[in-house]
Amino acid sequence: MDDKADEADNTEAISELRASLGDDAISTDDEDLRVHGYSEWSSINIDQLPVAVAYPKSTEEVSKIATVCYRYKIPMIPYSGGSSLEANFSAPYGGMSIDFAFMDNILALHEEDMDIVVQPSVPWMGLNEEIKGSGLFFPVDPGPSAKIGGMVGTSCSGTNAVRYGTMKDWVINLTVVLADGTVVKTRRRPRKTAAGYNLTGLFIGSEGTLGIVTEITLKLAVIPQETSVAVVTFPTIRDAAAAASKVLRKGVPVAAMEIMDDVQMRVINKTGNTDREWKEMPTMFFKFSGTKAGVQENIKLVKSIAKAHKGGDFIFASDADEQKKLWSARKEALWSMLALREEGHDVWSTDVAVPISRLPDIIEISKKEMDDLGLFASILGHVGDGNFHESILYNAKDPKERAAVEKCIHDMVDRAIEMEGTCTGEHGIGLGKKGSLVKELGLDTIGVMKSIKSALDPHWLLNPGKIMDFPG
Amino acid sequence: MDDKADEADNTEAISELRASLGDDAISTDDEDLRVHGYSEWSSINIDQLPVAVAYPKSTEEVSKIATVCYRYKIPMIPYSGGSSLEANFSAPYGGMSIDFAFMDNILALHEEDMDIVVQPSVPWMGLNEEIKGSGLFFPVDPGPSAKIGGMVGTSCSGTNAVRYGTMKDWVINLTVVLADGTVVKTRRRPRKTAAGYNLTGLFIGSEGTLGIVTEITLKLAVIPQETSVAVVTFPTIRDAAAAASKVLRKGVPVAAMEIMDDVQMRVINKTGNTDREWKEMPTMFFKFSGTKAGVQENIKLVKSIAKAHKGGDFIFASDADEQKKLWSARKEALWSMLALREEGHDVWSTDVAVPISRLPDIIEISKKEMDDLGLFASILGHVGDGNFHESILYNAKDPKERAAVEKCIHDMVDRAIEMEGTCTGEHGIGLGKKGSLVKELGLDTIGVMKSIKSALDPHWLLNPGKIMDFPG
Repeated sequence: MDDKADEADNTEAISELRASLGDDAISTDDEDLRVHGYSEWSSINIDQLPVAVAYPKSTEEVSKIATVCYRYKIPMIPYSGGSSLEANFSAPYGGMSIDFAFMDNILALHEEDMDIVVQPSVPWMGLNEEIKGSGLFFPVDPGPSAKIGGMVGTSCSGTNAVRYGTMKDWVINLTVVLADGTVVKTRRRPRKTAAGYNLTGLFIGSEGTLGIVTEITLKLAVIPQETSVAVVTFPTIRDAAAAASKVLRKGVPVAAMEIMDDVQMRVINKTGNTDREWKEMPTMFFKFSGTKAGVQENIKLVKSIAKAHKGGDFIFASDADEQKKLWSARKEALWSMLALREEGHDVWSTDVAVPISRLPDIIEISKKEMDDLGLFASILGHVGDGNFHESILYNAKDPKERAAVEKCIHDMVDRAIEMEGTCTGEHGIGLGKKGSLVKELGLDTIGVMKSIKSALDPHWLLNPGKIMDFPG
Repeated sequence: MDDKADEADNTEAISELRASLGDDAISTDDEDLRVHGYSEWSSINIDQLPVAVAYPKSTEEVSKIATVCYRYKIPMIPYSGGSSLEANFSAPYGGMSIDFAFMDNILALHEEDMDIVVQPSVPWMGLNEEIKGSGLFFPVDPGPSAKIGGMVGTSCSGTNAVRYGTMKDWVINLTVVLADGTVVKTRRRPRKTAAGYNLTGLFIGSEGTLGIVTEITLKLAVIPQETSVAVVTFPTIRDAAAAASKVLRKGVPVAAMEIMDDVQMRVINKTGNTDREWKEMPTMFFKFSGTKAGVQENIKLVKSIAKAHKGGDFIFASDADEQKKLWSARKEALWSMLALREEGHDVWSTDVAVPISRLPDIIEISKKEMDDLGLFASILGHVGDGNFHESILYNAKDPKERAAVEKCIHDMVDRAIEMEGTCTGEHGIGLGKKGSLVKELGLDTIGVMKSIKSALDPHWLLNPGKIMDFPG
């Protein structure tokens, strides 16, 4: 980044792009810049904002934007849902935010092949609404406002991961604009391939640092015949985690298995999204899906395992509507937390993942340390993957409070790494976790990543400052 | 490869390595070289052999070998099961074959985490035999003699892929020796991660061209309670493929779904591996697994779909023993074909994959063209993934016959690519399919692969000549 664009370069590039793509294609409106450089639910925010926001309408326009930015050495930062949590779309070196707002179309649905071709700003929830008549759905379910482009970038997952896997299991191919504007397609459209390097899998999770994804072919799954939701309380979070572990080891094919602590249950009660008053205790949410008989069989198995681990109050959603309410309460956990935040206060929400057997240990210790902060803080987790989240409400303007929260989070992350886990199971590294990534993988492995980065983006223009810092 | 090692370099490197690792560590025995450079079931063989075979006993020894080879610019070719089909371990530029024969240990089984750490020469079948007491198994099932190292290299799969996915879905982390001898580990041991680039997924399927894998952590699955096998005949291969497509679209969770043509059924009859005399007609093999009730339910569904597609003779394996025999007949299809080969004749066995809806079309046309050759030739396929194999017995020494077979195969591969498919679903590119890969992906996408290759292996020493040719 030695020869980074200066103000004159930025101005020239912007006017060149406006001439080529139309005046509306590039915004330098202050509020627009703020929206694209700041996030109220990010663990970290910085003062620097992008210098402009581009609104391309096609892969060709993205290619033009990249060609110009490449020539002027202007950083390029892809933006879709804006719901990431580690400042993944922040602009520490200024540059051009590339917002896919106008690239939100489903381009083709191939029902018989069970796949769909979409642009980056298609929201996963909208997608599923759109195609439900086909009997198919896209099973990766991160935060409700996430869009496919960002989901590719962070290699996200969600509650369905225990059954269906993560983003990298559901992408068939990507159309990618490289740093210099070259357009490549990683694959054709076979569901399975062993032909050459797995570029699709490399771009997924690279947080826009290797290329700008403009088109995505996703695998779809068949909507299960029958779904059911059950909720069980446990005396301690350790008991709940131990029960989860047993369910996995017994091979019960749960569709999802989520843990929420007493605080999170209080949040559900407070936001009043369900008609029920929940016990404010460690609670497991199970989702079952399959055929009628299969679902009944699995519920029976889970019930007996839960009982053996001191589980009580085994409750079923009484109907489809309650199922939906229950599950959406779980899905909106972060939003519900945010709603309870005091004026001017912040949220720090982060995730780690560990080998499954270590989950009871890390949740127990981390929960205790978090409670010791004396703040409003909760744990919830995708226990089937050894993955859990902490969310802490705090006053970032109070240096002492901020330091305490920071220490608590960092200790949890270090603990996950010591347990042979990872500093993030599904949120990505962004700006926030670069130090942890070095601790997790070591400099030689990071060195391999840097070699790949430099090979594909020699001037480090693509989302610079994320995942890794520049060499030297 | 301008500054490739000459004979003197090879001699010096070999004596240096013998001094460091022991005389037995490096073999230059003629028969040993032949075994490591030639394969009787490869689609292509070349005259060049490796100049030596190294037998490392640890990751440290592999690192030493790489350090010396890197210094003398000697090609390095990893070798484990030797069962690949596209000359993936051939030695077109000579060099050092690195045989993992003495690295065949299970290093750790973590039952509670449902993972296992192994060395490259652990065979997948032996692995499953070894751990069956734990109630866990490794579900990726390629040819019976395949070993984990090679399975990582080719990103293989097998009959279980329709239910469990392919190799890249089952590897947690890899220990890799880079071209210059540096040892890296791609990940720690969480089942799920979003931390940095997916190096694990990049090394899988790179056929040893980016690094030498010396240690692999694999996910394990729980052995299903109940398994069943059923066999159905169809009047035409198109009917069979159409039934398979319907089974997928209905979301029936079959454990495997394999198609075999009339010729392949004749092979089973001839090799007499099962007690039954099979109808020599297009036949589908289904595997079901899960709970007792679930299996029964799925069998019922498949039976009704098969019937609607003119399926007849719905036969169940009567007991566990027949299940095993039936399934092993399917697994040993290639070996059975080889057993029927005339003295001095060859086999060309290759695979492609297409979007599922195109499978009936491509199988029908390809089968017709293959029959027109007038040779002994069969089709079998993992229809659940849109992936199928052709195996042709022929006389490679007859130039006219060889040309006819080559044209038939190339036409099938081109057809798969035109149908938005891939030139290989699970065998990899090796030496044999480099031209097809260019047709499939285009030069810009291959360019991205070459950039990555050059970044990690600047002298193109790792398995040179595979997947892609040197730049320029």
